[in-house]
Amino acid sequence: MMKIDNFGAGPCILPPSVFEQASQAVLDFNDSGLSILEISHRSPGFTAVIEEAQETILELTGLKDKGYKALFLQGGASTQFLMVAYNLLHKKAAYLNTGRWSSNAIKEAKLFGEVIEVASSADKNFSYIPKNYEIPEGIDYFHCTSNNTIYGTQIKDFPNVDVPLICDMSSDILSRDLDFSKFDLIYAGAQKNMGTSGATLVIVKEEILGKVERQIPTILDYQVQISKNSVFNTPSVFSIYVAMLTLRWLTKQGGIKAIEKKNIEKADLLYNEIDKNSAFEGIVAKEDRSLMNVVFKLKDESRQEEFNKLWQESDIVGINGHRSVGGYRASLYNALPIDSVKNLVEIMSWFERQS
Amino acid sequence: MMKIDNFGAGPCILPPSVFEQASQAVLDFNDSGLSILEISHRSPGFTAVIEEAQETILELTGLKDKGYKALFLQGGASTQFLMVAYNLLHKKAAYLNTGRWSSNAIKEAKLFGEVIEVASSADKNFSYIPKNYEIPEGIDYFHCTSNNTIYGTQIKDFPNVDVPLICDMSSDILSRDLDFSKFDLIYAGAQKNMGTSGATLVIVKEEILGKVERQIPTILDYQVQISKNSVFNTPSVFSIYVAMLTLRWLTKQGGIKAIEKKNIEKADLLYNEIDKNSAFEGIVAKEDRSLMNVVFKLKDESRQEEFNKLWQESDIVGINGHRSVGGYRASLYNALPIDSVKNLVEIMSWFERQS
Repeated sequence: MMKIDNFGAGPCILPPSVFEQASQAVLDFNDSGLSILEISHRSPGFTAVIEEAQETILELTGLKDKGYKALFLQGGASTQFLMVAYNLLHKKAAYLNTGRWSSNAIKEAKLFGEVIEVASSADKNFSYIPKNYEIPEGIDYFHCTSNNTIYGTQIKDFPNVDVPLICDMSSDILSRDLDFSKFDLIYAGAQKNMGTSGATLVIVKEEILGKVERQIPTILDYQVQISKNSVFNTPSVFSIYVAMLTLRWLTKQGGIKAIEKKNIEKADLLYNEIDKNSAFEGIVAKEDRSLMNVVFKLKDESRQEEFNKLWQESDIVGINGHRSVGGYRASLYNALPIDSVKNLVEIMSWFERQS
Repeated sequence: MMKIDNFGAGPCILPPSVFEQASQAVLDFNDSGLSILEISHRSPGFTAVIEEAQETILELTGLKDKGYKALFLQGGASTQFLMVAYNLLHKKAAYLNTGRWSSNAIKEAKLFGEVIEVASSADKNFSYIPKNYEIPEGIDYFHCTSNNTIYGTQIKDFPNVDVPLICDMSSDILSRDLDFSKFDLIYAGAQKNMGTSGATLVIVKEEILGKVERQIPTILDYQVQISKNSVFNTPSVFSIYVAMLTLRWLTKQGGIKAIEKKNIEKADLLYNEIDKNSAFEGIVAKEDRSLMNVVFKLKDESRQEEFNKLWQESDIVGINGHRSVGGYRASLYNALPIDSVKNLVEIMSWFERQS
């Protein structure tokens, strides 16, 4: 197999051991003689998989035995925008708008009640994280997006609120050490640090549920999903299996603290190059730079074709910037080896010398 | 690998070639050097996959160029119960109740308007398909479930209605030749004849959409999903890939008519054994017997342990009946080889001779 440096923003690179084990399970799951693709979601084999995934995520985040449940649902974060509001928005809620996904979450919430946008960085194309905003009284919950995949910003300090704190952590979950007990509901599409697409993690503190009066459609009701342990209906079996393998891998790496150290090392390497390389510049406010998605551009955009040719010929993939930002975006998810970052830095450095 | 006869009700057996190709793509997708699990859902590679899947399903069902769109969504049929009503239920709709899934569909629809249950077979634990029911005037649509996985019944004749005809075909899609153009919206979880879990097929005639006044949450809006060609958000990439492989396999088998012939052969073999074997009896009305899920029981239930031991020792899996019916259920989906049915019939026959 070719050696490719995959900086894709998601679905993204996973550990080679996960690919190998997943591939094997498609042929023969746990020496059962059956493929993981043909087993019942109610079989003991799969029950063990989903329970290990749930247990591991609560252990990694330090939320075990603290009143939280971990669910693996379908539909991505975009479905959570809706479920959060359906299940929790009684009268009004506050949202911090830090980008595309926050905006979409706000849009869905408005179908269910009043939404107060406490602050927004839309004025500068979401290139920074608003700070010093006020959180109003009398809200049902506060919602934020921890990391903005498109814009390359990341919240470093989460506000202290006395209402449920809800966070979309799709693109940085399990990448850095946080006090997860600060949050009442965390959700994340699996396809970044937690596996492949098709599964959506929800970690929810049970005590915040059951308080709205509206009738919630069965499939969107967190309490139903909890009572059925994520198998109210047929879940995305293979995606949950891949999540379990990825969580198992992360545990073996030493957990979140250990991977955070590596992630900081990778991000420092690339941001340092961006800052010292005369051909490139960063796009976002330095204090808000994401550890996961590094967004940068050429100072001289007429050299774009030249640079594109260079990285493409070096077997680098996935660093084209999002169309709403332009430039380049290198995503440095947990499974990306530091050698990939070194390769990128090397060609950036070489490119500078050709000026 | 062991040779196992997998009669599971779903997720279910798929063709060996699908397992092999899917396993290989987890290691290296299309010789790209990347796993199918790490590629972008907006990459040319995946775009070709989803477009082939959509194109193939419209070709197999004869619905190409007839105003239909094929979508691959998430959330299973249980999410479709909700989406159908959200998108199409203006004031009232009529539902035929033939089992658990019909009942669940009715439950969700009631959140959005009046639901008229035109008939129900609940009186006999859904062991038959109601006939000669009247469909009221002034309804927005008529909804039915083509095959009842739990109870082993199947609708043979669909009613003629002058309103949109909506059908949950989760457990028999692509298994028998139907005039699919009779239907305006067909949905099906992929995990029976169409692949593995995590993808949900929707085939919808575009002209029936956009007629309700309520605001539909973005992710649940068929028109949004159509405008974004099923990639409004990150879809279940691998599940759609497996569906594409399975649809490609079915095309190679000669399509629906060819597979229907084999399915009839398999079902006849097993039903004939049930009818002539003095140790067993069928459970459902003969004229409503499903080609996909064959439900039967022992005449003498005290011999249950003896029979269970026999089939389990013969490497047969998945024939325990659903808890709400009891007895046995052998599912004969498209990919199940006739040899598996022959094996089952053989042990049933042997079992009879031990009486």
